Amino acid sequence: MITFARMQLQNDLLLRAARGEKTERTPVWLMRQAGRVLPEYRAVREQVGGFKQLVETPELAAEVTIQPVDILGVDAAIIFSDILVIPEAMGLSYEVVEAKGPTFEQTIRNGADIDRLKIASPEDLQYVMDALQITKKNLAGRVPLIGFAGAPWTILAYMVEGRGSKTFSVSKKFLYTEPALSHRLLEKITLSTINYLKGQISSGADIVQLFDSWAGLLSPEQYEEFSLRYIRRICEAITEVPVVVFAKGAFFAREAMGKLPCEVIGLDWNMEIELSRELIGNKKTLQGNMDPCLLYADHETIRTETHRMLKRFGPHRHIANLGHGLYPDIEKEKVKFYVDTIKSYRAV
Amino acid sequence: MITFARMQLQNDLLLRAARGEKTERTPVWLMRQAGRVLPEYRAVREQVGGFKQLVETPELAAEVTIQPVDILGVDAAIIFSDILVIPEAMGLSYEVVEAKGPTFEQTIRNGADIDRLKIASPEDLQYVMDALQITKKNLAGRVPLIGFAGAPWTILAYMVEGRGSKTFSVSKKFLYTEPALSHRLLEKITLSTINYLKGQISSGADIVQLFDSWAGLLSPEQYEEFSLRYIRRICEAITEVPVVVFAKGAFFAREAMGKLPCEVIGLDWNMEIELSRELIGNKKTLQGNMDPCLLYADHETIRTETHRMLKRFGPHRHIANLGHGLYPDIEKEKVKFYVDTIKSYRAV
Repeated sequence: MITFARMQLQNDLLLRAARGEKTERTPVWLMRQAGRVLPEYRAVREQVGGFKQLVETPELAAEVTIQPVDILGVDAAIIFSDILVIPEAMGLSYEVVEAKGPTFEQTIRNGADIDRLKIASPEDLQYVMDALQITKKNLAGRVPLIGFAGAPWTILAYMVEGRGSKTFSVSKKFLYTEPALSHRLLEKITLSTINYLKGQISSGADIVQLFDSWAGLLSPEQYEEFSLRYIRRICEAITEVPVVVFAKGAFFAREAMGKLPCEVIGLDWNMEIELSRELIGNKKTLQGNMDPCLLYADHETIRTETHRMLKRFGPHRHIANLGHGLYPDIEKEKVKFYVDTIKSYRAV
Repeated sequence: MITFARMQLQNDLLLRAARGEKTERTPVWLMRQAGRVLPEYRAVREQVGGFKQLVETPELAAEVTIQPVDILGVDAAIIFSDILVIPEAMGLSYEVVEAKGPTFEQTIRNGADIDRLKIASPEDLQYVMDALQITKKNLAGRVPLIGFAGAPWTILAYMVEGRGSKTFSVSKKFLYTEPALSHRLLEKITLSTINYLKGQISSGADIVQLFDSWAGLLSPEQYEEFSLRYIRRICEAITEVPVVVFAKGAFFAREAMGKLPCEVIGLDWNMEIELSRELIGNKKTLQGNMDPCLLYADHETIRTETHRMLKRFGPHRHIANLGHGLYPDIEKEKVKFYVDTIKSYRAV
């Protein structure tokens, strides 16, 4: 593993905002900024055939990671990858079927299945490490590079369910019927994730984000027991760079998230800004939280709503983003307009 | 339209709890109690071929409506129907494709599409009125009969999207790009829904519930503008019987829901009980809110969690239910155990 010497960044707004320092303006990046909204991305993807092939081809993954920095002018690059590389590195391979999403041939059903899983190390995901290193080199310090991983509950959800689901009822059944096995699996995922994130940091990530995409499916009690405590463990282990926790739908856990040993909490667009600040407290930077569907609207509506969001978050301890990833049919020009609106805004 | 003389109910726990009166014990019914968890339901459905055919066959719809009263011992029957009968009565027919959900051949795209829609009257849904009347007769006053409809935003979501969706981004795009048309459509849906619910009441419904299944997809601001104001209109119009509003995922609107002119607010399992009571206030009965996945667990876990829920809600102004509909693969015996646990619980 190569450890990158931290080079001076030309634009470190994101990192300073994450650490709670004052910034000249609010930094902005967008979840799924490297993706189908960009025709340039679609062209690169066609070269290799599909999403997963692109994830596994470091040069091209690096290329699409940098595209939104060039094209949209965002203040950070996020490595082009998939949260499901972790289950695969642990021993469960998956495929991405167009218009159907990810599917796993094998799923986790019992203790023997869990015993067979390995604890992943960065070497198991060398192609991600390579992609980070190439990206870091080619970014040449223009903006920070964001690494990421799925939160353990979300990863368990896929490993047990075997595919996407509206309810993830198979996975939730596993939590209710096999709590001890669930914890054993979460433990292995957590250790794998810590190794993986530390590898990403050694390979150049300046900040890392945990995505708990299916947080909103759990009750407050189950969320604390099966998700938050593992997120906490990961936050405690990652001391090298700032950590962002984005738990979609976990409105009920905002107070608890305010106590996590991390720097940034992501909000989705359902979470009211002022109340979230009150629940989370003043010691965290907040990230988000515009409804991605706003970007279907006309410029005037986008500008009005974006200004309103920025005013409500205030000029400090905010990283502008969306409350969810960009939808593929949003026009690139509207995305750029959103980014430009944020970059040219000055608090009055 | 036949107006039913209100007959004396042998078990009116649900209605008394809805009106805030003290009851000997907490009443219980379950969303989707008439459905695939019951083998008896599956047998009836096979007679007619499919879900939609069953909805449209009053004698059989009445039969499956009463099944859970006989088999599970719940304190209310809810008419077996579908929220999508309203778009169909307005002019957009739909099909239910197995494992794929509902699909509409035509969707709403512009003002002309909205102009072509009619405002539905109870006569347009005579088969639902018939099913209610048969049910009412065959129930013979054993328990109250619940009528229902989709909330206007949820109905618009299907009419514009044309099918189920994880994001309903086509419908949300419509709200952002065509707010005036959205309001025109919501107006027509609202008037249709009021007519429909009044018809249901005349045909025997003792209480009605509005399902806002996709409430959680809207931002707090959009929710107020495009959903809550129409729900309020419906609540104001329905003065004959108590009204239940269940807006899944609308945690951010709980305070506003406490001010609706309705009797009962449904909670999903993400909504923390004590905080919901605090936000909604003491003038509403709360309904819910167990995670349906609990019913995958063993008896001891179900009993412990059910007792905990009942204790947290307290003995009054609570109607026990789930936080969402029953999932089809839950065992009937577990469902019955949940119902029995509630019925035999006495606050200590």
